[in-house]
Amino acid sequence: MDQVRQGVHLTDEQRLDWLRLIRSPNVGPRTFRTLINHFGGARAALEALPSLARRGGARGATQVCARADAEREITAAEKLGVALVALVEPGYPPRLQMIDDAPPLVAIRGQAAAFALPMVAIVGSRNASGAGMKFTQRIARELGEAGFAVVSGLARGIDAAAHRASLATGTIAVLAGGHDRVYPAEHVELLDDILSAGAALTEMPLGWEPRGRDFPRRNRLISGLSLGVVIVEAAKRSGSLITARFALEQGREVFAVPGSPLDPRAEGTNGLIKQGATPVTETSDIVTVLQPIMEQRNVPRQEAEPQPPEGGFFEGTDPAPDERTRILALLGPTAVLIDDLVRLSKSSPSVVRMVLLELEIAGRLERHGGGLVSLA
Amino acid sequence: MDQVRQGVHLTDEQRLDWLRLIRSPNVGPRTFRTLINHFGGARAALEALPSLARRGGARGATQVCARADAEREITAAEKLGVALVALVEPGYPPRLQMIDDAPPLVAIRGQAAAFALPMVAIVGSRNASGAGMKFTQRIARELGEAGFAVVSGLARGIDAAAHRASLATGTIAVLAGGHDRVYPAEHVELLDDILSAGAALTEMPLGWEPRGRDFPRRNRLISGLSLGVVIVEAAKRSGSLITARFALEQGREVFAVPGSPLDPRAEGTNGLIKQGATPVTETSDIVTVLQPIMEQRNVPRQEAEPQPPEGGFFEGTDPAPDERTRILALLGPTAVLIDDLVRLSKSSPSVVRMVLLELEIAGRLERHGGGLVSLA
Repeated sequence: MDQVRQGVHLTDEQRLDWLRLIRSPNVGPRTFRTLINHFGGARAALEALPSLARRGGARGATQVCARADAEREITAAEKLGVALVALVEPGYPPRLQMIDDAPPLVAIRGQAAAFALPMVAIVGSRNASGAGMKFTQRIARELGEAGFAVVSGLARGIDAAAHRASLATGTIAVLAGGHDRVYPAEHVELLDDILSAGAALTEMPLGWEPRGRDFPRRNRLISGLSLGVVIVEAAKRSGSLITARFALEQGREVFAVPGSPLDPRAEGTNGLIKQGATPVTETSDIVTVLQPIMEQRNVPRQEAEPQPPEGGFFEGTDPAPDERTRILALLGPTAVLIDDLVRLSKSSPSVVRMVLLELEIAGRLERHGGGLVSLA
Repeated sequence: MDQVRQGVHLTDEQRLDWLRLIRSPNVGPRTFRTLINHFGGARAALEALPSLARRGGARGATQVCARADAEREITAAEKLGVALVALVEPGYPPRLQMIDDAPPLVAIRGQAAAFALPMVAIVGSRNASGAGMKFTQRIARELGEAGFAVVSGLARGIDAAAHRASLATGTIAVLAGGHDRVYPAEHVELLDDILSAGAALTEMPLGWEPRGRDFPRRNRLISGLSLGVVIVEAAKRSGSLITARFALEQGREVFAVPGSPLDPRAEGTNGLIKQGATPVTETSDIVTVLQPIMEQRNVPRQEAEPQPPEGGFFEGTDPAPDERTRILALLGPTAVLIDDLVRLSKSSPSVVRMVLLELEIAGRLERHGGGLVSLA
């Protein structure tokens, strides 16, 4: 498969620019993509950041990630055996590359070969039942034997059981913090075992302590890496259900293990089955669904390289001061559709997008998905 | 609902004829229907039986149910408070009337009013788990409160739990033997409790000890009475799965309660869910599906009365001796399609059907469903 994989390699200098751009405040994966497409590259985007932020009304000096900080991260990563792989490079996990908010750079530790396997995520409750743990071990082992890498979140309970049962065949831990901030701390040894045939992946910088909000965000990577996600035991409103929702949004298969209606740990999985998830009582239920997907030809990569803008980016999209004022006046704490902003402001869509980008870089805009934005 | 129910009342004499016909050897519900449609009534069919059997090659004298035996059954039924209700009568359970092999007569004991309620069957393992029993009680009670009669098979385990939790609101026990041969014997008192607000129903004569093969046959009545069947805990190849299969064939809804893949009692129900049964974790899952079906106008009854044949039945359908020989020669122990018999014999379809009917009455034909027949 690797032979036919397209992609380019970043130079050290480009990688440094990419890292600085994604580590700069108010630049998330989507904004990164917008910036790099509009400005033709990370370097140009970095240079534009202060002016964008100023025009967006940022208070105080603009914090662009310093070159020295990025260099320090790269050095520390190398020391820990962590590779920073860019979205356009062949080492980037191919399915993950297809999601809308794929991280521009992922930090990968362990065996890169593990990412060449087809991947299935197995996730579930931290306070799992004995039966749930046993069933997880069974399907993780059998999926490993069937040639899949098992992706999970290194949490207690189901996640740990899934990793442990697939150590020999290859398992991938997706972290919510930096590679040097393993959570939970008691799983440091498990992570070491994982790295011998598998890998760990995160989008967060070294030194990053995972906070509560980092876990849901991390869950999109678990599903994004995988052909499908198996949910074993999940209570209502649990993190595993967030992973299932991401999987649906990303067009990945959702599998759920049924359980007794009297077991609160089965509420989430039974609910998923009611909503159409594939029920799983044996490994073949998963393989049967994934096999035809694997046999499809690889979807072409979205973009081999960031495309430089046609013509000058600022031509025609540089908002006149009164346009900026008019668009800003239409924004408030209540989310509004970007389409409505275009209609109401009578500005061109590209001008509206530019004003929103400026506000975003200035830290004044919140994006809600579905084309909805509000002032932060 | 009863006001709009169509139907006729049989005279005592007609009821006696119907009973004699269905109690005669080699006459099942389907053959009964064929006979009564072809001959215009039970009396004429009874009179034709010996000749049909002879022409079909029956060995020995033909056993037609004696008038005295039928009179004895009617007297005994009256004594026990059992009503023999015919397929064409308004007291016949309306949904049951719609199935292909509806019994021409059902023996009903208890409160006829119970059959005016919309019905849901709840069935499952005899060796049920505590959780299975508890969940059964919950849904049976709640379905009763929602205005449904609960249908089940009086067995140990799930069946008994379903009956017990719906005694006050109305529950219907469908028996595999006669009303005076309750199985299991330990449920005689439960049956008494059932009869105070509910009913018991069977197609078998008084005095009939249920044998193993009577239970699967009985299961078609459980599903046939009901809008839908809920399977709570069922192992692979269990009787409850037979009920589910009948329900599908009869166009009834199939509901299944999920369970852990490690619990063998959930193998059957999880399997049903995989095949498309509605998963049930709460009563509303059932009611939501059945409500719209109940609100549909009642499907018209298949036939208000048996139709007399147009023209003489024997005209054109009386096989010539060589035709009978030719058709018989095409039959053997391997099942063959009736359509193929017509094609290969070059006889008319009605002649082929008549020869098959003769063989059936003579006890020499086996019907396999799907238009397949073989010599018995």
